[in-house]
Amino acid sequence: MDSLEKLRKIIKESIPKSAEITDVLYEGPEISVYSKNENFIGNDHAEIKNLVKKLRKRIVVRSDPSIRIDNDETVAVLKKIIPEEADITKIMFNENLGEVIVECRKPGVAIGKAGEKLKEIKKQTFWIPRVIRTPPIESRTVALVRSMLQKERQKQKSEFQKIGKRIHRQSMKSKLNIKVTALGSFREVGRSAILIQTNESSILLDCGLNVGNSKDLYPLFDNGNFNIEDLDAVILSHAHLDHSGLVPFLYKYGYGGPLYCTEPTMHLSTMLQLDYCNICEREGKPAPYSKKDIKNAVLHTFCLEWGKVTDITPDIKLTLHNAGHILGSSLIHLHFGNGDHNLVFTGDYKFQRTRLFEAASCKFPRLETLITESTYGGIQDVVPSRYESEKQLIQILNSTLRKGGKVLIPVLAVGRAQEVMVVLEDFISRKMIDPVPIFVDGMISEATAIHTTHPDFLNSELREKIFHQGKNPFTSEIFTQVDGYQARDDIIAGGPCVIMATSGMLQGGPSVQYLKGIADDPNSSILFCSYQVEGTLGRRIQKGFREFQHYSSTGKRSLVKTKLAVFTVEGFSGHSSRSQIISFIRKVKPRPERVLTLHGEASKCMGLASVIHKRMKSETRSLQNGETIVLK
Amino acid sequence: MDSLEKLRKIIKESIPKSAEITDVLYEGPEISVYSKNENFIGNDHAEIKNLVKKLRKRIVVRSDPSIRIDNDETVAVLKKIIPEEADITKIMFNENLGEVIVECRKPGVAIGKAGEKLKEIKKQTFWIPRVIRTPPIESRTVALVRSMLQKERQKQKSEFQKIGKRIHRQSMKSKLNIKVTALGSFREVGRSAILIQTNESSILLDCGLNVGNSKDLYPLFDNGNFNIEDLDAVILSHAHLDHSGLVPFLYKYGYGGPLYCTEPTMHLSTMLQLDYCNICEREGKPAPYSKKDIKNAVLHTFCLEWGKVTDITPDIKLTLHNAGHILGSSLIHLHFGNGDHNLVFTGDYKFQRTRLFEAASCKFPRLETLITESTYGGIQDVVPSRYESEKQLIQILNSTLRKGGKVLIPVLAVGRAQEVMVVLEDFISRKMIDPVPIFVDGMISEATAIHTTHPDFLNSELREKIFHQGKNPFTSEIFTQVDGYQARDDIIAGGPCVIMATSGMLQGGPSVQYLKGIADDPNSSILFCSYQVEGTLGRRIQKGFREFQHYSSTGKRSLVKTKLAVFTVEGFSGHSSRSQIISFIRKVKPRPERVLTLHGEASKCMGLASVIHKRMKSETRSLQNGETIVLK
Repeated sequence: MDSLEKLRKIIKESIPKSAEITDVLYEGPEISVYSKNENFIGNDHAEIKNLVKKLRKRIVVRSDPSIRIDNDETVAVLKKIIPEEADITKIMFNENLGEVIVECRKPGVAIGKAGEKLKEIKKQTFWIPRVIRTPPIESRTVALVRSMLQKERQKQKSEFQKIGKRIHRQSMKSKLNIKVTALGSFREVGRSAILIQTNESSILLDCGLNVGNSKDLYPLFDNGNFNIEDLDAVILSHAHLDHSGLVPFLYKYGYGGPLYCTEPTMHLSTMLQLDYCNICEREGKPAPYSKKDIKNAVLHTFCLEWGKVTDITPDIKLTLHNAGHILGSSLIHLHFGNGDHNLVFTGDYKFQRTRLFEAASCKFPRLETLITESTYGGIQDVVPSRYESEKQLIQILNSTLRKGGKVLIPVLAVGRAQEVMVVLEDFISRKMIDPVPIFVDGMISEATAIHTTHPDFLNSELREKIFHQGKNPFTSEIFTQVDGYQARDDIIAGGPCVIMATSGMLQGGPSVQYLKGIADDPNSSILFCSYQVEGTLGRRIQKGFREFQHYSSTGKRSLVKTKLAVFTVEGFSGHSSRSQIISFIRKVKPRPERVLTLHGEASKCMGLASVIHKRMKSETRSLQNGETIVLK
Repeated sequence: MDSLEKLRKIIKESIPKSAEITDVLYEGPEISVYSKNENFIGNDHAEIKNLVKKLRKRIVVRSDPSIRIDNDETVAVLKKIIPEEADITKIMFNENLGEVIVECRKPGVAIGKAGEKLKEIKKQTFWIPRVIRTPPIESRTVALVRSMLQKERQKQKSEFQKIGKRIHRQSMKSKLNIKVTALGSFREVGRSAILIQTNESSILLDCGLNVGNSKDLYPLFDNGNFNIEDLDAVILSHAHLDHSGLVPFLYKYGYGGPLYCTEPTMHLSTMLQLDYCNICEREGKPAPYSKKDIKNAVLHTFCLEWGKVTDITPDIKLTLHNAGHILGSSLIHLHFGNGDHNLVFTGDYKFQRTRLFEAASCKFPRLETLITESTYGGIQDVVPSRYESEKQLIQILNSTLRKGGKVLIPVLAVGRAQEVMVVLEDFISRKMIDPVPIFVDGMISEATAIHTTHPDFLNSELREKIFHQGKNPFTSEIFTQVDGYQARDDIIAGGPCVIMATSGMLQGGPSVQYLKGIADDPNSSILFCSYQVEGTLGRRIQKGFREFQHYSSTGKRSLVKTKLAVFTVEGFSGHSSRSQIISFIRKVKPRPERVLTLHGEASKCMGLASVIHKRMKSETRSLQNGETIVLK
């Protein structure tokens, strides 16, 4: 009798006949029970809750498809029950979950008092209604992901059943053994990839590419311990390409297992991966994967909320927690065996509340090994406070704009762009800078749209502002979206303004076109407010170089000399400063026995490891790529 | 054109036509040139020496087989040229090397003044004569290995050609990367195995089994970095089973490459492996390999002398140096790339001159990483001096013998047995202990015979005594070789005596039969003078347990209580004491940047690493099995 058969038996025995259970299936890490009795559908019945406690597995009760009423009829019922003032913009069905998703402008109205409307819908249609807020800006990526999943429901269902079967396989070993192998981002910034192995599982944390070093683009996939066929799960800390950029590559080369991340991470990484493929195509470089592989990754994604414990292998449980770095960014908590060992990988994190996000979480039920990023872990990385940084930003903006210059801010589409937008909107509304036009170019708008799709992942103040005060800084009219070469040339030829453009490290894209356009103007400025990876043009200019090779869209090379004033405002970084990292390690509960540093230049990873060791007396190590250590 | 073709071209171009070169072939790491001109044969011609310097490869010039005279005729020539007083005991031919080996009692007479006899033999026969001394005791193992190789010359020749081709393959990578993976003997004593990988080579240092823990008998062969098909070379530090015991297992599972070690190590490990197979058979346990696999290992063995640099892969050169632990034991020095990194693995070593051996070497041309054993590396491991230990031994012997008791000394067949024999022979000849019979049981005699076959590997004093004073302690009449159960029972029933018997840790064998036989006699003693591995009966008794389960030859179990006085004399150990290890690390030239500790209980490996770090300020680590570190 396999484990699913056993489960079926237990569930059928524990639940009264009246529940009319028709089937029990795996659905990724969860177990879905199908019922024909409306009272059991929806997972809030006491007997189900007891079963969850007993089995220590996540169980959801779905309606048996045969009793669900027809989609068109359901839409009619919805329109009858939900008042018109709820302002429904979209109705979508998820047949796998038996859910009908109602997107509307006034969710409160659609839900009704104590959810009375929802109960009524469930009763009449046997679909479980889920109400979501219509985002103020529509995201093309979100629409794409939705339509793709809509078409592939059957395939996803069967994939999730396979995945579930693998997750719930019988545990083979009694003794726990845990190994960590450094595949990428150790003593460097880029190609984040950590292999975690126990004697029965193998999982990968992040799978990024090397932004600043195309020669070492890939993590060390040729490491002997890495075997794509053995991989049980891939977990994504956040969407930046140095963490997510090679996930589709895994699917291209045979991986067919689950990808765990938050929903915003799924949307943002899909956007960035599609863009990466486009850039490769445009530059005539072979892309490491195609759009088909990106689609395949989305199909295998199991979205997780923060704080929810999920079985991902017979001996590993996963919980994501807020990391405060970008939208959806997470700390990854792994619980091994019976809790004999627990590990947190921070990914990139900010241990300070920002305009957009809450500070990273620092409380865990258990913790033995902490793996922390070290981007600003060097002794010289003293980062000014937010207050200081904002003051500095105001000064730079005003002094440049008043000289008639332009301020070019190269930004990553995701993260700093939105942070700076909120700051600028605030400055202008409080009249702290002159009301010049602010141009937003590149993928920033699309990323911003994804932000407005997931307001739950923003901090409470910003949510309050958007929902209850009706002031959404992202939709402010001070921002002008730019498209195309001609528009850019007009801006370059025009008057004082602020230009936010990708790519954030001047690795191609509109930011480079603007740079070339305004390079000659000594009254204009370039302002870096996010980390510049070693090897990028951004880093070169930041370090003081004033000449660079420019390749036009037709491939013509020219030497550009820049007269721009160059500024760096570190305080807006989404990374923890050295003192924030140390403060995080001091405050994290419980105190870890072992700390590993990664994601920083070699000197920073080693310097940080050394200061942690001195102050905390915990074992610390700065591994090198290719190294394997035994945790237990 | 492959690398051999290139070599042929260069060699033929560099050497005059008169040399009559007929062929150039690989012979393992060496290159053998075949010539029909007697002046070129034998590798001392100036043009060949220049070529060796130029190519930086080892070249030997052999006679073309077609010009060598018939074996019987050669024997006749030998007998004519070598005077009868040389006392020839054996004449053997090695067709692969074109050598005729003359074993005789007076080598000096056979060689003649300035080697005149040898030159004459070469001239008349076209065989290169090699004269070796007839050992005073004949070894069955040496005879077995010789006859086996004699039968398999053709096969060995073709295997060595394949091996040579692989060694001299084209180097693929320009950048050097070196990884060390701990497969066994890290934080434990047993199953010594270290995997060393560069970006183009993969070699294994030692391949031992776990003597004290049959549950973890094997090194971590399932480690992802270990891949038997990728293995270029196996190097053996010395013959003890915890270092050599699983070498034939590699050949059983498909390894077909070279095994590098000294000649005594080949003989001793073959003896111990054959004995291990016999013991498994006797105890009804499945042996991990058969005699056929041991034979296969011998066939692929390339014996090295100390101090000779050998190419073993395109980017690794190997040199063995004296380790002072047992006969033929070696420190392994590896030189990577163009000398960018150098590593020494000590194996087991004694950094002190003993009765048998010189102290371990401590000078190397270059050295960055040192891997040292830690058997006695604990802070409490204060080992008395040799002088103290000998005094203590005399006291124990005299007090026991004078009470009419027997002294049982369990010894490993190889190492301590011979050391203690030399000590006892000295004591008796100097009348420091009473002249009681000394019984030698188990494989000790055979191991002793192998010692007498390789006098060059003993220290200068002992060699002087044997060769020039004609006093061979090993052949002294005070020792009586014992065979069979009945003889043992007679000894047990008899009067005061010293019994040296294997196994050294009371893991079966005659030592256990004696222990059971004399256990009841409070006047008798058991004396441990070698390291007792955790988990063995020897260790239990040493720690104070006075009861044990005994299984008779018929499998009958009985509980034995012992009344014996238990003594441990640490000073005879073949391992360096803690202070000797530290002194070695202080004196080793040049000073290594990094020290790794292994081959010791966990606390000793870690304790030793810690003290080295404090005193030497070098990076030190006590790896765990399964861990991988990057050296460069």
